[in-house]
Amino acid sequence: MKFCSECGQPVVLRIPAGDHLPRHVCPACGTIHYRNPKVIVGCVPEWEDRILMCRRAIEPRLGLWTFPAGFLELGETSGQGAAREAMEEAGTEVEIGELFVVINVPYVSQLYLIHRARMKAPTFGPTIESSEVVLMREDEIPWDQIAFPTIWHSLKFFFADRAAGGGAGVHVLDLAQRPRRPEQAEVPGAPV
Amino acid sequence: MKFCSECGQPVVLRIPAGDHLPRHVCPACGTIHYRNPKVIVGCVPEWEDRILMCRRAIEPRLGLWTFPAGFLELGETSGQGAAREAMEEAGTEVEIGELFVVINVPYVSQLYLIHRARMKAPTFGPTIESSEVVLMREDEIPWDQIAFPTIWHSLKFFFADRAAGGGAGVHVLDLAQRPRRPEQAEVPGAPV
Repeated sequence: MKFCSECGQPVVLRIPAGDHLPRHVCPACGTIHYRNPKVIVGCVPEWEDRILMCRRAIEPRLGLWTFPAGFLELGETSGQGAAREAMEEAGTEVEIGELFVVINVPYVSQLYLIHRARMKAPTFGPTIESSEVVLMREDEIPWDQIAFPTIWHSLKFFFADRAAGGGAGVHVLDLAQRPRRPEQAEVPGAPV
Repeated sequence: MKFCSECGQPVVLRIPAGDHLPRHVCPACGTIHYRNPKVIVGCVPEWEDRILMCRRAIEPRLGLWTFPAGFLELGETSGQGAAREAMEEAGTEVEIGELFVVINVPYVSQLYLIHRARMKAPTFGPTIESSEVVLMREDEIPWDQIAFPTIWHSLKFFFADRAAGGGAGVHVLDLAQRPRRPEQAEVPGAPV
């Protein structure tokens, strides 16, 4: 941020009175501009024994696989946002189920909330964001081609819950540091 | 938002190519400015059979009661942010426990994440943000003077869990619409 979004004058970085962190402050109009982490919402759409996976048609991680997920928009609940992403990224209509994963990713200032979801019909297809959309059984998941660690961990929780015979509440995970090489992943096999 | 924070020129509101919602776009430099919901993190600090409550010294809801909570900052996990808020608002050092409440508040584009917490010592006091900081037993909680519905619901979950003999995982709640009168609260007695 270089200019005040309210008055267009240059901003400076300083700690406002009563605050504890430097903020972008406008000396002209006094506006304090806060920047905060973003929320990413997603769902694992189920149809019978398979789940809907998308191959990314856009950067980052173009060509790698994910379930539908994206930034929460103003005015949405996490479930509403997750359902919207399922339509936008996979062209499928879902009934959103329970929240089952919360992951803090402080090194990119993101928070992931992942829901269960039931597809209303086996209707789906490629979109601007997904070059391929495929229903996969667990043994078809391309574990070494998953786009993000958060997606990999969420899928592992999903299938572990299924193996255990049902939901196990909400799995909470902090990905405390950015892995730079595969052997630094917090769980062996997780993408970096 | 009226001006581009990157180049200082006036922005316009339009739907970018491939997007589905109007965004503030800069015709001069092409930057798309996204606005997203904010995350509020907090904790219920425990000391023996009491919890630490703060009377707000600042707007909004000046004079009403809350436990420590505030906006998640860049680079933090929800637990780290909740511990920071306990120090800033109540002057107390806590050991953060499990996440136990997630509340969507779409009508103000906020997401609340509330953790359990243990105070490391019975040390606390008023701060810039809190005119009074008090250890309270359950029967001392001023239920009709709680600052926000999210705080009220979180406290209800906290004491219900305690009455049931322990944690019950993560409580997930959507406050789907803004209550305008007490009788419109989604749970009888919740603040509006």
